[in-house]
Amino acid sequence: MIRQIVSQDNQYIKLTASLRQKKYREETGLFVVEGTRFVQEALESSWILEYAVVSEAHEGNERIRGLATNLEKRGCQVLSVPPALYKKISDTEAPQGILAVMQQSRETLEAVAVTANKALWVILDSLQDPGNVGTIIRTADAAGAAGVLLAGECADLYAGKTTRATMGSLFHLPVIKASAPQCLEFCRRLGLSLYVAGAEAKHAYTDVNLTIPCAVVLGNEGAGVGDDFRSQARLHLKIPISGRAESLNVASAAAVILFEAVRQRGLAL
Amino acid sequence: MIRQIVSQDNQYIKLTASLRQKKYREETGLFVVEGTRFVQEALESSWILEYAVVSEAHEGNERIRGLATNLEKRGCQVLSVPPALYKKISDTEAPQGILAVMQQSRETLEAVAVTANKALWVILDSLQDPGNVGTIIRTADAAGAAGVLLAGECADLYAGKTTRATMGSLFHLPVIKASAPQCLEFCRRLGLSLYVAGAEAKHAYTDVNLTIPCAVVLGNEGAGVGDDFRSQARLHLKIPISGRAESLNVASAAAVILFEAVRQRGLAL
Repeated sequence: MIRQIVSQDNQYIKLTASLRQKKYREETGLFVVEGTRFVQEALESSWILEYAVVSEAHEGNERIRGLATNLEKRGCQVLSVPPALYKKISDTEAPQGILAVMQQSRETLEAVAVTANKALWVILDSLQDPGNVGTIIRTADAAGAAGVLLAGECADLYAGKTTRATMGSLFHLPVIKASAPQCLEFCRRLGLSLYVAGAEAKHAYTDVNLTIPCAVVLGNEGAGVGDDFRSQARLHLKIPISGRAESLNVASAAAVILFEAVRQRGLAL
Repeated sequence: MIRQIVSQDNQYIKLTASLRQKKYREETGLFVVEGTRFVQEALESSWILEYAVVSEAHEGNERIRGLATNLEKRGCQVLSVPPALYKKISDTEAPQGILAVMQQSRETLEAVAVTANKALWVILDSLQDPGNVGTIIRTADAAGAAGVLLAGECADLYAGKTTRATMGSLFHLPVIKASAPQCLEFCRRLGLSLYVAGAEAKHAYTDVNLTIPCAVVLGNEGAGVGDDFRSQARLHLKIPISGRAESLNVASAAAVILFEAVRQRGLAL
């Protein structure tokens, strides 16, 4: 049964609102996904749902009703709140009226190393922009990459801006935070060649063999890839720039390199 | 000489603040560029500078002093304001303390058609996100494209989010607003083949000849490319998706297709 809540002092309401802040996401290990499409993706995933919140203003919506039914079938409590209260906990400008609170992934590098078989990995070194991090996770999924490692001080994976930019791909492939040494050890263990992307690199990305098991490292928007990775690279690769732009946006660069890997691998579907 | 302003009722201050709104940008034909790098790009361009504003808090900064000198050499008045006042007119979270007010481009499709010689164009059909529009302009520049046409209801080119995402590429190649029929007429006149990108297309982008004079059309984030362009396409091309993602972000898709064109054309620099 859907439970009605009207007080902003309710513990669920306070908890949900607090998850907009990284501090509380880290303390609780929880995060919020919002909107019909994203909640649907969450339902289809094996991730653990804690509870969901629906705005009374959207309860008549058929898609939301269907989602609420399926959430309850999965043992996830659905709370109903007045529109004004929903707006207080929502992180979006035009709320669709449904959100779910979920547990963050506990996937570890060790566990993934055992089962990882596909041989295209992406490592992000201290990317600051949540939109870039999320977009690259989406691109990595679309390119059939095995997973994404977040090294250094990347934008928080569980911030709304990041998860929204993944368009649900967050649930499709392992995305794991790790230190640079852990990433390097992971690559050694899986036999992945380390390709570091950078504007001053010697090799055009189209001249590099991207069909072998490899990890492509993309760096911070300003500073590029750090020395930890640079010193261990098998090759440094660049995207030649034809016009007067200094460089590509890092998410665009990731798309170009990952889909060159797909092309070299024969667009295998 | 730098002129000091302390009142928020000053006409320059009020004008600058008003330019955060599209309505006033359209009324005046002006827009704001902000930050040392972007003002430097503006100075190197042939665009018309109206005036610049410097925060007193950054007047000691050598780079800002150098920019102010060069702005004045170009006949552009430099105004100095207290930090609190600067913050009021700034559109960025961590202001670098310098902005310039400029005239929007008056470049027309007709004029460009006469001089256009390079044969890779990008047409954006009703892209909503300013970050996507700006990022694609940057990518088009980096790929050596001849220009970008903004068709339909695209995000405003002169909004801060758009111009920032171009990273200065706005000044490097023609970016022109036009209706769909105008874009189609332009393509006919220049002999450009129209390649429309879409998820349901038949041809993989790698199987399409991107070395001929062509215009790549990318569509709205949700609805894709409109019928005006779809009905006139020489070919519909898609980026095959390997993983479970439904699609790529449109700016990522643009990067993949434009750099495939660069690759096919032999990475000509």
